[in-house]
Amino acid sequence: MADRRLVPPGGTIGILGGGQLGRMLSSAAAELGLRTHVYCPEAESPASQVSAATTQGTWQDENALAAFAASVDVITYEFENVPSATARFLADRNAVYPPPRALEVSQDRLFEKSLMVELGLSVPPFAAVNGESDIYSAIGRTGRPAVLKTRRLGYDGKGQAIIRPGEEPRLAWRTVGEVPSILESFVAFEREISVLTVRSTSGQALTYDIAENRHRQGILAVTAVPAAIDPETAEAAASIGTRIAEALDYVGVLAVELFVCAPGMPRLLVNEIAPRVHNTFHWTQDAAEASQFEQHIRAVAGWPLASTRRHSNVEMTNLIGADAERWQALAADPTARLHLYGKREVRAGRKMGHVNRLSPLNKT
Amino acid sequence: MADRRLVPPGGTIGILGGGQLGRMLSSAAAELGLRTHVYCPEAESPASQVSAATTQGTWQDENALAAFAASVDVITYEFENVPSATARFLADRNAVYPPPRALEVSQDRLFEKSLMVELGLSVPPFAAVNGESDIYSAIGRTGRPAVLKTRRLGYDGKGQAIIRPGEEPRLAWRTVGEVPSILESFVAFEREISVLTVRSTSGQALTYDIAENRHRQGILAVTAVPAAIDPETAEAAASIGTRIAEALDYVGVLAVELFVCAPGMPRLLVNEIAPRVHNTFHWTQDAAEASQFEQHIRAVAGWPLASTRRHSNVEMTNLIGADAERWQALAADPTARLHLYGKREVRAGRKMGHVNRLSPLNKT
Repeated sequence: MADRRLVPPGGTIGILGGGQLGRMLSSAAAELGLRTHVYCPEAESPASQVSAATTQGTWQDENALAAFAASVDVITYEFENVPSATARFLADRNAVYPPPRALEVSQDRLFEKSLMVELGLSVPPFAAVNGESDIYSAIGRTGRPAVLKTRRLGYDGKGQAIIRPGEEPRLAWRTVGEVPSILESFVAFEREISVLTVRSTSGQALTYDIAENRHRQGILAVTAVPAAIDPETAEAAASIGTRIAEALDYVGVLAVELFVCAPGMPRLLVNEIAPRVHNTFHWTQDAAEASQFEQHIRAVAGWPLASTRRHSNVEMTNLIGADAERWQALAADPTARLHLYGKREVRAGRKMGHVNRLSPLNKT
Repeated sequence: MADRRLVPPGGTIGILGGGQLGRMLSSAAAELGLRTHVYCPEAESPASQVSAATTQGTWQDENALAAFAASVDVITYEFENVPSATARFLADRNAVYPPPRALEVSQDRLFEKSLMVELGLSVPPFAAVNGESDIYSAIGRTGRPAVLKTRRLGYDGKGQAIIRPGEEPRLAWRTVGEVPSILESFVAFEREISVLTVRSTSGQALTYDIAENRHRQGILAVTAVPAAIDPETAEAAASIGTRIAEALDYVGVLAVELFVCAPGMPRLLVNEIAPRVHNTFHWTQDAAEASQFEQHIRAVAGWPLASTRRHSNVEMTNLIGADAERWQALAADPTARLHLYGKREVRAGRKMGHVNRLSPLNKT
């Protein structure tokens, strides 16, 4: 394991990936007097606009990666599809937080589900599908409808296919690209919630209030806090986050998406984990004392954590694709806290920004 | 007058000056999807660490200034000692907000006091001192103790000398450097407060809650909000800010420092104005919906203003010089929202960062 060093003000946080999450991490680091150096394949990225340095390089360019590792005090990532070999290469040269193992677990749905089972956590019934012929036995375990998901590189609903009663399962196999996958029961859940745990190098762990999420076409549309769940469920969700973070000897923020299920099923099923700052906690920028971005920077820099206290109720709405063209109306709305990511090109399904709307705490 | 254009997301705000105020303006601009280009004489500045572009140039380099003006969508400044000729040169080439006249007024204590008098606002009794022999007649108008202040380039208590009863006035003239000055009555005030007005290109004006300030050795030490003043005084202070902003056809945030005086004197005396984001409103980063930095960027970009609502009580403490060496203790204090400016060198009297401490609104 790399040494758990303390990065003082004036030190440099290396960030793998140049998207909006890296951008918001960079701004949070600056607020603490830290510099950032972004490593990403793109020439022009949202994060590099607000960072002291950028290296444009591929995930395979060992010379560029070694120079990057030598020029920063600690390395983190905003992009969970950084190749595991890249993370291991860097971890041989500098501290990489969250630990590469968290990246590996989150990149493979089978590893992820297996860890949850190992920790005694509930997940939707699932089965591995490594070839076309596996699908039939897998359906035997999951029932129908079920959803076939590629083990690797799936996000925002890509790489998924639903198998409904009466439908030909081989079609789903073709849709996901005939790659190693898992078939998962299509769970009838009441709501989707997420928990964000932040864990420091000294093992201090804190969670934010639980968020409740609504998706549209497989992409997160809205997150509301507080979630409409009872205190016991909230506490159970928070303890799941902490448990996974401890199992991974985690440093940084870890997001866990959970399904809240109806009576007769386990109350909480783990859907997936993300070893990074997460869209469902963008509300912390405006409604909590310290944002998830600041907490992540504090953790990877070896600092103590800040307060996760929420001072307002909040609803976060993503601005996806053409939604961002409404920026003038949103800028004129005094109830909307507008955040835009500096992306030049609007594309369908592309996250362009988000809006946080606050209301007083006592009005739930 | 330059045209009052609207800068859309993706556009670039030019910022004159590279200090911590420019740094915090840059981060606020980024949050709105705007790019920043910093112009400053220093090779390495706090603001350039978080800006998409930096031009290192002097305030006299017309080629560099012209290229800068051509490369940005609007120009603002974080440094009130930008030479007036520089601001006028740029204003011939692009929109400069706040208007150069505001800069000129704030740079000269005599112009500043004269404008206040013109607007019917109260100021401490004062008299111009252009030579040694003027001091005696000036003392006749102000009484003693009085404070001699250079008309130009004074800040954080520099360029000031107190003339106490029995002291030789010529000594003060020498202390301030024998330059055009004003002598001002040493006002026995109850407290110093400040008001921040933000005014948009369309003339919309908002103020934040009034702040109360405590100085140490002529440098701001602590700002507390709410100020310990009655609602009528708060309202009068806010209307003074709006009145000055309107008189200057102002765009951006304008800070006004006021003395609250004892019965028998005018209740509020204008001490000075600053045509920029101001240290006494750094608390808005953590205790208000939108910070002064965001409001300033919105105003100069031609956007509507955001909410100035304060959601918490707050006390801001500056970290000056060696104070910043306590960063580890402050980082570990969950009640402290820590902000550091990325300055490599600690120097006595140098502002290195600040801390905001929040408490619930109802606990005053």
